[in-house]
Amino acid sequence: MLIDHLSIIGVGLIGGSLARALRKAKLVNRVTGCNRNEDTLKKAIELDVIDDYSLAIDEAVAGADVVVIGTPLSTTEKILPQIVASLKPNAVLTDVGSAKGSVVSTAQNVMGDKFSHFVPGHPIAGTEQSGVEASFAELFIDHRVILTPLEETDISAHKLITEMWQAVGAVVIDLDVKHHDDVLAATSHLPHMLAYALVDCLAGMQEREEIFKYAAGGFADFTRIASSSPEMWHDICFSNRDALLDSLELFSEHISEIKNAIEHSDSEQLLSIFKRAKQARDQFTKSRKQSE
Amino acid sequence: MLIDHLSIIGVGLIGGSLARALRKAKLVNRVTGCNRNEDTLKKAIELDVIDDYSLAIDEAVAGADVVVIGTPLSTTEKILPQIVASLKPNAVLTDVGSAKGSVVSTAQNVMGDKFSHFVPGHPIAGTEQSGVEASFAELFIDHRVILTPLEETDISAHKLITEMWQAVGAVVIDLDVKHHDDVLAATSHLPHMLAYALVDCLAGMQEREEIFKYAAGGFADFTRIASSSPEMWHDICFSNRDALLDSLELFSEHISEIKNAIEHSDSEQLLSIFKRAKQARDQFTKSRKQSE
Repeated sequence: MLIDHLSIIGVGLIGGSLARALRKAKLVNRVTGCNRNEDTLKKAIELDVIDDYSLAIDEAVAGADVVVIGTPLSTTEKILPQIVASLKPNAVLTDVGSAKGSVVSTAQNVMGDKFSHFVPGHPIAGTEQSGVEASFAELFIDHRVILTPLEETDISAHKLITEMWQAVGAVVIDLDVKHHDDVLAATSHLPHMLAYALVDCLAGMQEREEIFKYAAGGFADFTRIASSSPEMWHDICFSNRDALLDSLELFSEHISEIKNAIEHSDSEQLLSIFKRAKQARDQFTKSRKQSE
Repeated sequence: MLIDHLSIIGVGLIGGSLARALRKAKLVNRVTGCNRNEDTLKKAIELDVIDDYSLAIDEAVAGADVVVIGTPLSTTEKILPQIVASLKPNAVLTDVGSAKGSVVSTAQNVMGDKFSHFVPGHPIAGTEQSGVEASFAELFIDHRVILTPLEETDISAHKLITEMWQAVGAVVIDLDVKHHDDVLAATSHLPHMLAYALVDCLAGMQEREEIFKYAAGGFADFTRIASSSPEMWHDICFSNRDALLDSLELFSEHISEIKNAIEHSDSEQLLSIFKRAKQARDQFTKSRKQSE
């Protein structure tokens, strides 16, 4: 048995899918859920995602060998002290937040001695759906999970969380905290901002109706991520504020470059931007296929 | 037989797929191809896309009942006078350009009497691939083709082109020229600019390697269109210059709004943008499903 008693704080898509996958693989004896909303917990019992639950964090955490924080990023600051107070000695704590700098700094402030048993994590998986109803055991198969252990991180705690994610099919990678936040700002947080901005922009246009009516498949792909949870993305924006603002600034410069080239009929410049981008994108496709 | 003799100027993905589909449906007797590059034409013969070819536009057009211009938008101004000079009386001319205002104004200037037999068209179909090798008969099935006939457009010419596209499986819609260009700038040309700008932006970052390595599925979807032909998109930008610049301007305002909200910790504003966008995107998904 990899984990005797697992506690999931925030039983949503990610927490729920992790619990399902570990139970399916018979790698956990008991899963306790905790959530603000009792209906969600009842639903989770009904769906056989958890064994039991508590609405109180201290109760849910007491006795657990591994605690996974699956709540929105904005709640971490509030709930972390409550979790820490009830963690048993040597229990391992991990989270699933899409930004790591802010979580790590909160943990450093409130965890004291126990900070060595916190393994910050970020499974790069998810759909536009959210909630325990959308969870499924196969969510993490072949997806990357980034862990951002620190110098202080206990080696066996790090090993346990690595094995946990590998056991549910994920490819686990270690990255430095700042590096993680910069890379994620560029590849995930920025594209989400663009998709939200684009859809909001088009929805406000006079031709709104025709725009959505005549939009082709490329548009559907391009804006799919604008259906993601507004609350979750709101939290990510503020948790990864600096890296995201840098990305937005850099992107705006690139858009201005294209705008200027069109405005000034600079054929050569426009073509060279498009060619450079196509080459990079084709390379990305190629390296993805190779790693498959 | 819908069309006795069809002539395709520019045998690429679109022209080639149209020829294949009409031949497959036995709706055309003879297809003549014309291209700058003779190898392409030999390939098209080999692939059974065309019956015969000519490197000279006047020869390729002479005797044709329907002429389809499938060349890049930037060439229209140059080749249209040559086509017009050799069109037989009552032959119908159509094109497949992604921007219509510039093509229509060129045609108005050079076609004289024959302008009534020009039916401007735009099949909203394509892949990131290009060239006759990528063409296939099913490309247009369930895709929209927008026609932008004018007051002067001959009714039977309009009817023939409508039937031609319907025969290959497309849903044909008529739109006003300016309306077409505004809608396409918003739903297709703008997203392509964003994808090109994003990929170019990330490819220039210090963390380039990790960025492409850790990018998830959402990023792949979002940037797929940046693999499209640089030359084609270069032409589209200049052909639909004004509408595209307006879209870029409006989009930049929306991005600034998001940037400001993050910068000034305006939680409420950020959340309301995301919610508005999600609602519009969900509505788009719903109406797409209904029309399927």
